Amino acid sequence: MVRVGIYGVTGYAGYEAFRLLRRHPAVEVVFAASESGAGSSLAHLFPTLDDFPVVAFAEAPLDRVDAVFLALPHGVSAAVAREALAAGVRVVDLSADFRLKDPERYAQWYHEAHPAPDLLAEAVYGLTEWNRPAVRQARLVANPGCYPTAVLLALLPLARAGAIGPGPLIVDAKSGVSGAGRKPSLTTHFVEVDENLSPYHIGRSHRHLPEIEQMLHAVNGGLGPLIFTPQLLPVARGILATIYVPLAPGWTEGMVRDLLVETYGREPFVRVLPPGVLATLRHSVGTNRCVLSVTGVPEAGMVILTASIDNLIKGAAGQAVQNLNVMFGLEETAGLM
Amino acid sequence: MVRVGIYGVTGYAGYEAFRLLRRHPAVEVVFAASESGAGSSLAHLFPTLDDFPVVAFAEAPLDRVDAVFLALPHGVSAAVAREALAAGVRVVDLSADFRLKDPERYAQWYHEAHPAPDLLAEAVYGLTEWNRPAVRQARLVANPGCYPTAVLLALLPLARAGAIGPGPLIVDAKSGVSGAGRKPSLTTHFVEVDENLSPYHIGRSHRHLPEIEQMLHAVNGGLGPLIFTPQLLPVARGILATIYVPLAPGWTEGMVRDLLVETYGREPFVRVLPPGVLATLRHSVGTNRCVLSVTGVPEAGMVILTASIDNLIKGAAGQAVQNLNVMFGLEETAGLM
Amino acid sequence: MVRVGIYGVTGYAGYEAFRLLRRHPAVEVVFAASESGAGSSLAHLFPTLDDFPVVAFAEAPLDRVDAVFLALPHGVSAAVAREALAAGVRVVDLSADFRLKDPERYAQWYHEAHPAPDLLAEAVYGLTEWNRPAVRQARLVANPGCYPTAVLLALLPLARAGAIGPGPLIVDAKSGVSGAGRKPSLTTHFVEVDENLSPYHIGRSHRHLPEIEQMLHAVNGGLGPLIFTPQLLPVARGILATIYVPLAPGWTEGMVRDLLVETYGREPFVRVLPPGVLATLRHSVGTNRCVLSVTGVPEAGMVILTASIDNLIKGAAGQAVQNLNVMFGLEETAGLM
Amino acid sequence: MVRVGIYGVTGYAGYEAFRLLRRHPAVEVVFAASESGAGSSLAHLFPTLDDFPVVAFAEAPLDRVDAVFLALPHGVSAAVAREALAAGVRVVDLSADFRLKDPERYAQWYHEAHPAPDLLAEAVYGLTEWNRPAVRQARLVANPGCYPTAVLLALLPLARAGAIGPGPLIVDAKSGVSGAGRKPSLTTHFVEVDENLSPYHIGRSHRHLPEIEQMLHAVNGGLGPLIFTPQLLPVARGILATIYVPLAPGWTEGMVRDLLVETYGREPFVRVLPPGVLATLRHSVGTNRCVLSVTGVPEAGMVILTASIDNLIKGAAGQAVQNLNVMFGLEETAGLM
Repeated sequence: MVRVGIYGVTGYAGYEAFRLLRRHPAVEVVFAASESGAGSSLAHLFPTLDDFPVVAFAEAPLDRVDAVFLALPHGVSAAVAREALAAGVRVVDLSADFRLKDPERYAQWYHEAHPAPDLLAEAVYGLTEWNRPAVRQARLVANPGCYPTAVLLALLPLARAGAIGPGPLIVDAKSGVSGAGRKPSLTTHFVEVDENLSPYHIGRSHRHLPEIEQMLHAVNGGLGPLIFTPQLLPVARGILATIYVPLAPGWTEGMVRDLLVETYGREPFVRVLPPGVLATLRHSVGTNRCVLSVTGVPEAGMVILTASIDNLIKGAAGQAVQNLNVMFGLEETAGLM
Repeated sequence: MVRVGIYGVTGYAGYEAFRLLRRHPAVEVVFAASESGAGSSLAHLFPTLDDFPVVAFAEAPLDRVDAVFLALPHGVSAAVAREALAAGVRVVDLSADFRLKDPERYAQWYHEAHPAPDLLAEAVYGLTEWNRPAVRQARLVANPGCYPTAVLLALLPLARAGAIGPGPLIVDAKSGVSGAGRKPSLTTHFVEVDENLSPYHIGRSHRHLPEIEQMLHAVNGGLGPLIFTPQLLPVARGILATIYVPLAPGWTEGMVRDLLVETYGREPFVRVLPPGVLATLRHSVGTNRCVLSVTGVPEAGMVILTASIDNLIKGAAGQAVQNLNVMFGLEETAGLM
Repeated sequence: MVRVGIYGVTGYAGYEAFRLLRRHPAVEVVFAASESGAGSSLAHLFPTLDDFPVVAFAEAPLDRVDAVFLALPHGVSAAVAREALAAGVRVVDLSADFRLKDPERYAQWYHEAHPAPDLLAEAVYGLTEWNRPAVRQARLVANPGCYPTAVLLALLPLARAGAIGPGPLIVDAKSGVSGAGRKPSLTTHFVEVDENLSPYHIGRSHRHLPEIEQMLHAVNGGLGPLIFTPQLLPVARGILATIYVPLAPGWTEGMVRDLLVETYGREPFVRVLPPGVLATLRHSVGTNRCVLSVTGVPEAGMVILTASIDNLIKGAAGQAVQNLNVMFGLEETAGLM
Repeated sequence: MVRVGIYGVTGYAGYEAFRLLRRHPAVEVVFAASESGAGSSLAHLFPTLDDFPVVAFAEAPLDRVDAVFLALPHGVSAAVAREALAAGVRVVDLSADFRLKDPERYAQWYHEAHPAPDLLAEAVYGLTEWNRPAVRQARLVANPGCYPTAVLLALLPLARAGAIGPGPLIVDAKSGVSGAGRKPSLTTHFVEVDENLSPYHIGRSHRHLPEIEQMLHAVNGGLGPLIFTPQLLPVARGILATIYVPLAPGWTEGMVRDLLVETYGREPFVRVLPPGVLATLRHSVGTNRCVLSVTGVPEAGMVILTASIDNLIKGAAGQAVQNLNVMFGLEETAGLM
């Protein structure tokens, strides 16, 4: 059994990680930590019957675990990661702290100095399907952001294969409210979200933009600028990203679909829909899958990719479990089917 | 033109009052005050095009208005009411401060001493249909709570007419989330409310219970205990109360419906549905109406009353406007149709 | 492996049964039948990646299964049940055809003659926790209705123990829309349901009423009349029933809770919440559990029971799987945790 | 008083037209017709207190009205329009029958011959802000589709001014479910829509695409191809269109905003938000307004326009009333504020 501790269990991603790990056949949850919930238990904090004590960070027994999940705010995560690594514990960090490789870029987007620049070099970006060998060896995995997971799984094969022509890449993305976290705010108030749809940080101003571009540029230096339009949907869970891609000469809808099928044909958690079927939120919510569909627009020399994930599972806790499985040599789908 | 100021315009009830008064043909909104929103303007605080400056309480020009609406937390309202009355301004108070006539009962339910016991005697309970003559003369109107408005409009005719038999009165009530206010909390977080239904303060523990009983007992001292089950619905607006009433001997469904029709036949804002049609939230939301339906259960000697209101309109700001109209001799439906 | 066929797989309950059985470690789904969907496959009928061919009833290979699930309309189910039984196949019927023991009562509530009165005697009412020994032997299980499951699990212990005093039993119940089936109608149109709450068939007119009373009266002949108020909630899944129970002399909230805990302490799928915690929809949705809470109202000599289930799982397909497990000697929780 | 009859009153657009016209100070609703609802009355067909008899088409007294609204399916509307025009009655047609000027294009998109090609020449496309003089004189107004209203109000000023550079115009549009009509179908079933987001007819396959292109090309023949991605949102009402526009050399975000402000500065029903504020559904729902926001992406030489309307008001019945007001020389905002 792999022994795991969870930090930040009172947030949506942390609790989802708890829920998944609790049922994982090869994992034992040793502790669940939260500063705000310390001393309470999960059944007091969530409408759940699956109870478990919540401890303060200082009381979390790092010496009794093999790995920790950090479902913490950026800036907070790095210090806990350092402490865990020092104790010989492997880390899956669900925060943004280790996603951007360049500490200056981090400073520019997060408006503060990077909290642990010395750890950046060894951090592995945990988009499992694209970094499996490195994840296997990693002491520190930077679990991808929710939007980047959906967008990168759709675009990376095209970027690598040279299927993308000149011009901007436009990502019109919609997310359920759990993506905004559990901390109450006017933005997540039921009355403000219900029967509404709200764009926010659109253009080139959302923090997931540099994360997406970093990975895209790693496989293809010649891509056009990304335009990213996040929008808040009146649903609890799920991301649907509609991605408008200019094709390189000679590429067609069929070739793009074939490329995706080829890339992901043996992947348990990525599925490409057949022609004429469009990915919806429902295709993925409640699962660790990313579901992709391809629609050609030959009149414009473009394809529209649609990518659907559950933001809390494939976009956070599920992918973290997938990474844990890879890190510890477990079946990659364990606890996730 | 009646000149009106609004305190607490950044809450849902205060903003709804603003929205209604702004279109009122015989009212001029002179100021909109809020401590938290002071210095901003409405279009920065709500997704609205109907802009208006927001001032601090200290800057609200009480000398330039005929009346004020207080959409403030209980305990805060009383001091503002006193100041307004001293300035010769009539007050419609949407808080709970002047609803209970007995300051000790207030202390018991609100866990603090009543903030202005000397004003209680002159405060008029503004359930318009039942207190019209007193409202007309009032300097200080205590606008009813949302649940009490729905429940009392349904039950008062039966209580007064002796139609209610022995035994408990059971009110199973469901409310939209705007009833919980605009201040962010976990209770009103979209993800917590969505796809959920949550009872809270059920039995005899919700603060609207003594308010309902006070009015019922004023017309009939012999009623059984009230059981009150509020529940949070995943909708923005609306209250639906299902009320189980034991009938006094000789009373039937038809007699109860006739009684309601007789009581409210000339009321512009109360409607009784015909036999076989049940009140739903949709019957009232967006209007100042209370919609009632009656279903007999002769096997149990009972009727089920269903009462539907928009909690922010008939249950708060709309009824406040209705009271204002009565206080200033305007057409009672002005600004409300 | 128990080999199972599903009839009516294109409805919500039938599809949920498929979903559960597909992951069941000791079950093989041999066929999925539907008259309307015949010739298609599940991924064409639902936004799912879990594909499976759909066959017409006439082509369903009854000779290759040990049991069938019938998720069919009442009146349609009985003929299929007869055919299956004749082929030596055990039946879990999710329709209403075999729930009422008295064919005349069936005729009165369903407005047609009972389709198979000769099979009624052997049909076992599959409220698993209350009929486990009979279910174990049954050839034909009548899986309970969704509302009755929640209401009976709450009330049966009290009825049997004599904890219920004289007077009506009032059940104010709210259900998600999947309970109304997948056949499109104005009642289930998104725009009609959204932001609404609609009572329907209230009083003593819903078909689940005689089903509930039949079981209650089997354990206690002296109960008062049931009043049942079903209401349509704007959620996809879940039932929350608020039940108002007059207590027999000497009974208290604590005694009722103790009774429930005692009754269900070893049951894997019924949970009683501690004092002060109220059951919400979220406590049960997505699980096969019935979650109960108890709130005393000593002033009225009553308790309020709150019962929460997922209408498609514990209220339909999950309980059907639970019954299947019992019928075939499998672990009762298999495929359900 | 302008005397108006409504055909198709049992659909969402027809009923919304009834609701608006009923409160219109200068309009008398003479009849409300529906084949399916004939003989009934509105309070039986909608949860409304605003009752009115519903007549069959054959009984609609065309001789007693000045104008009719046709809220009918395409293909059905044309015959009623012809009959009304023959009776000297002016027509606002909310169907698609007279929107496309070219009957062959109609045949290509609607898969049947145009039902009244002889009337096409005189039909005026009723995008009020852009065709006011022609609407004033029109006997027959083709009320625009819901998506085209939002998209054209955003794009027409840019297209006319030469602000749009080469390359495709991408419209990622999301609509509430009332846009799909009131006829029950699996597409509009609550359980299918709830917690989901579904793209449909994306690329160049939705019938509103040629309608949008026809108007755009009328003001600018040199535009790139339109890509149109409609998506079904889990809300009852509202359209939010996110529009990605390549700018012509020299154009900037500020210039585009100025152009929109200049174009619509005196329009009562189009509003341009200030820099930094993004249009959301809530900005327009419940009003006849189109609300626009502009966000520049200089790195890509583009602007993102966001356009928000209420699909049933500005996108259907409200714009129809606006056109009626223009046709009959009434105040353009009458009945719409």
